[in-house]
Amino acid sequence: MKFKKEFTAGIVIIGNEILSGRTVDKNTSFIATWLNDRGISVEQVRVIPDKEHIIIDTVNELRKKFAYIFTTGGIGPTHDDITAESISKVFNQKYQYHPEAYKILEEFYKNQDFNDGRKKMAKMPEYAKLIPNPKTFAAGFYVENVFVLPGVPSILQAMLPLLENIIKTGKKILSLSIDTRLRESEIANDLTKIQTKYIDVDIGSYPYFKEKPGTILVLRSMNKELINQCNHEIEEMLKNKL
Amino acid sequence: MKFKKEFTAGIVIIGNEILSGRTVDKNTSFIATWLNDRGISVEQVRVIPDKEHIIIDTVNELRKKFAYIFTTGGIGPTHDDITAESISKVFNQKYQYHPEAYKILEEFYKNQDFNDGRKKMAKMPEYAKLIPNPKTFAAGFYVENVFVLPGVPSILQAMLPLLENIIKTGKKILSLSIDTRLRESEIANDLTKIQTKYIDVDIGSYPYFKEKPGTILVLRSMNKELINQCNHEIEEMLKNKL
Repeated sequence: MKFKKEFTAGIVIIGNEILSGRTVDKNTSFIATWLNDRGISVEQVRVIPDKEHIIIDTVNELRKKFAYIFTTGGIGPTHDDITAESISKVFNQKYQYHPEAYKILEEFYKNQDFNDGRKKMAKMPEYAKLIPNPKTFAAGFYVENVFVLPGVPSILQAMLPLLENIIKTGKKILSLSIDTRLRESEIANDLTKIQTKYIDVDIGSYPYFKEKPGTILVLRSMNKELINQCNHEIEEMLKNKL
Repeated sequence: MKFKKEFTAGIVIIGNEILSGRTVDKNTSFIATWLNDRGISVEQVRVIPDKEHIIIDTVNELRKKFAYIFTTGGIGPTHDDITAESISKVFNQKYQYHPEAYKILEEFYKNQDFNDGRKKMAKMPEYAKLIPNPKTFAAGFYVENVFVLPGVPSILQAMLPLLENIIKTGKKILSLSIDTRLRESEIANDLTKIQTKYIDVDIGSYPYFKEKPGTILVLRSMNKELINQCNHEIEEMLKNKL
């Protein structure tokens, strides 16, 4: 499958905790699944450290390549949260309090100390538009095609669906999985022939080695009829081998 | 912390299954942890699709930036396994059967059909050096500073330790975690002061929201004494706030 640029996305995971191996990134999988259901293909993911010049260069490179960029991480109150300021520099906008984001936090912290760390979470690029945060109230934001989300998966998962009407969606990418106890190497040649025939279906082949080895085949396409035909052909091929 | 180039690495995850959201990548975490224990810092991760020109461009860009590049995925027998051929092109080497890899597979499949798919797993760049595969016998390989590993985590995990004596290792990166029920926003200002004081310790701050909110602070450094001092100062700060 090849996607028009308007239906492509890149993800930028900002965070030393992923690069150090301490944390397994789950946000890519969530964002990618959500986008796939809306016809948008994630073309590339980058995991980068909390370093300003790297954030700026990476976002600048990718936002020209793809229709949408999603960043995760680095929008909290601490010293290592530098995403919002970096994105301000990407767009040459002032990094300042967003009046609405500030008001939401002021209200949330009205009976507590509304300290600098908490206020910092309302600082964004001057013309940022808010992505509300129904869980912990510190908003995300977007500027042009760059969507800035938090790193904590449960919060990100509550915020992403709020972009439903902001992102221009395409035709859902359908997928179908086939689980066979045959090894990849037993079916590789036949699979190649089938893939050559169905150019609008992406056939992925993923071996596994649990108690017994086997292979999961994943068919992906935007055309239901083609997936079904391709599936039928693969099932026949597998039957003849078992 | 800043690392000399000789102790830096990049990871290239090759596979549509990660980009589609179907699979959560666990290889980054495993490789990064293993490298950290050997004093090597992962500076960047890229997840890219099974497309030859993207594999070539990405590996070419990163292998100049970092001392080591690890790729995962795309070295099996099927049509979507194009990593070995792509890496041959990166180094302008012929893509051909590696005599030793071929022999290992021939032996392994001696009572089965040693078909083209199976033979394909012995095809590599002409001057590739093998990384043995103690689990399923299809070897990985390396050329210069590019290490080509499989995508299946259990196999990768069996192979990576075999690089122990091939990679030039540095001083182990130490880390220490502190779990506090204080919120990030309550400690952000004090933490900034401590981080400013300890420039050779990376202090990461990771909020969580389980039953109650809290924060995990992760200190990373190669200097044990500094980590201990910094830890002590943070513990004192936390005590005063609780």
